[in-house]
Amino acid sequence: NRSLSIRSNKKGGAANNNNNNNSPAPARKKGFSFASLRGSIQPELSRRLYQLIKSTNNLVSAHEAAGRERETIAKQLSEWGEQTGDEAVSDISDKVGVVLSELGAQEEAYAHGLDEARAVLKTIRNTEKSVQPSRDSKGKIADEIQKLKLKEPQSPRLVILEQELVRAEAENLVAEAQLTNITRSKLKMAYDAEFAAVIERAEKQIILAKHGRRLLDLLDDSPVTPGDARRPYENGPAARQVLNDAEDDLKTW
Amino acid sequence: NRSLSIRSNKKGGAANNNNNNNSPAPARKKGFSFASLRGSIQPELSRRLYQLIKSTNNLVSAHEAAGRERETIAKQLSEWGEQTGDEAVSDISDKVGVVLSELGAQEEAYAHGLDEARAVLKTIRNTEKSVQPSRDSKGKIADEIQKLKLKEPQSPRLVILEQELVRAEAENLVAEAQLTNITRSKLKMAYDAEFAAVIERAEKQIILAKHGRRLLDLLDDSPVTPGDARRPYENGPAARQVLNDAEDDLKTW
Repeated sequence: NRSLSIRSNKKGGAANNNNNNNSPAPARKKGFSFASLRGSIQPELSRRLYQLIKSTNNLVSAHEAAGRERETIAKQLSEWGEQTGDEAVSDISDKVGVVLSELGAQEEAYAHGLDEARAVLKTIRNTEKSVQPSRDSKGKIADEIQKLKLKEPQSPRLVILEQELVRAEAENLVAEAQLTNITRSKLKMAYDAEFAAVIERAEKQIILAKHGRRLLDLLDDSPVTPGDARRPYENGPAARQVLNDAEDDLKTW
Repeated sequence: NRSLSIRSNKKGGAANNNNNNNSPAPARKKGFSFASLRGSIQPELSRRLYQLIKSTNNLVSAHEAAGRERETIAKQLSEWGEQTGDEAVSDISDKVGVVLSELGAQEEAYAHGLDEARAVLKTIRNTEKSVQPSRDSKGKIADEIQKLKLKEPQSPRLVILEQELVRAEAENLVAEAQLTNITRSKLKMAYDAEFAAVIERAEKQIILAKHGRRLLDLLDDSPVTPGDARRPYENGPAARQVLNDAEDDLKTW
């Protein structure tokens, strides 16, 4: 079933379990730029998460923009309704505008929630960054030992290097344990927060949309024939009540 | 209560019920540009709705961007997880990625729904545009009659003009009835569709987020001490089942 994984199949689909694998960084879409230069000086280990955190920042911005646009639209709808000179359209469009404006506020709160989850991912990235030198130093000493064994098998420096390697391995063992502990707990924490934000926005926007539809029901759209007057608008108090209900429902969420 | 209207109070808050009022267009934020020039040649009557439809287009774009970004993030998360070399993190991050990707698809479907509601608003705007000449012509004839009555009260042209005015008024009566009928029915239709889109996105994203949290629960994040191995990962089948459940729930929505 295709939807069970979104990984591209270029590596044959099997997970690569080598901790020190040198899988290439994701293909860059842009040419040389300050942004891509900054990306390229990230250590190998934290490069992917660095990109993911950057993309999440774009996601936050998109939802912030959507929230602001909603609030602009809310105002424009209200002012358009006033200008129609139709008392019913004026009142309903103003109150639908209030609902849309609150939808926008929820969208902005959602963006804020995503941003907080993003901050949690940074903890993983920072740990990855700090573990990289530990891996590098262990590898470097092991390499040196290999070379020296070939060139000068009796060198007294070999003993020293073996001792250094044991110390580096011990240090790296701690670093790798820290990394797996931070990675697992913060990964859960970040996406749990993100899913919680999705649910909060969704539940609150459902409340708003349902009351918004109640407002629309208060607008009589039975057609009039030319010259006939509309019945006078009497739903003002009912419309005000809908907004009060929406406010109450949001408060008791 | 402040939240009962979002209209700015510059006009004293009372709705202006004059059908032919010359309320100024919303303040333009940009200087001279092709976009603002295009806005300024809209007839007075349809200018506000023209702006609202334009803002709604920005809203659609923001949600499209959010959806695309979500899908990018989903892939980045999956590929990061694979690179950790931790079988559990690799599997869970890949499957959380599938959920995020579907969240993104729902965001794009939402943008599409908003765009359809926007098309309905265009019907009102087009009717406003077509009613403007009818109002103008009625007003022009009435003006001409006023001027002629002062300058040449016995002119035989006055009789002709009075006849023309009666015809123009009849034509305008039809136009205004069409306008109020279209305005009310399409306003309801457009925002009903928009609120329906809000509810659909919300309900589907709640399903996805809840299953997403189930996936996170399958990741053991109890800390390990340095040198200890993690227990082998055995939640692969359970994780696959979560995705199947999510797919089933979305299908039966």
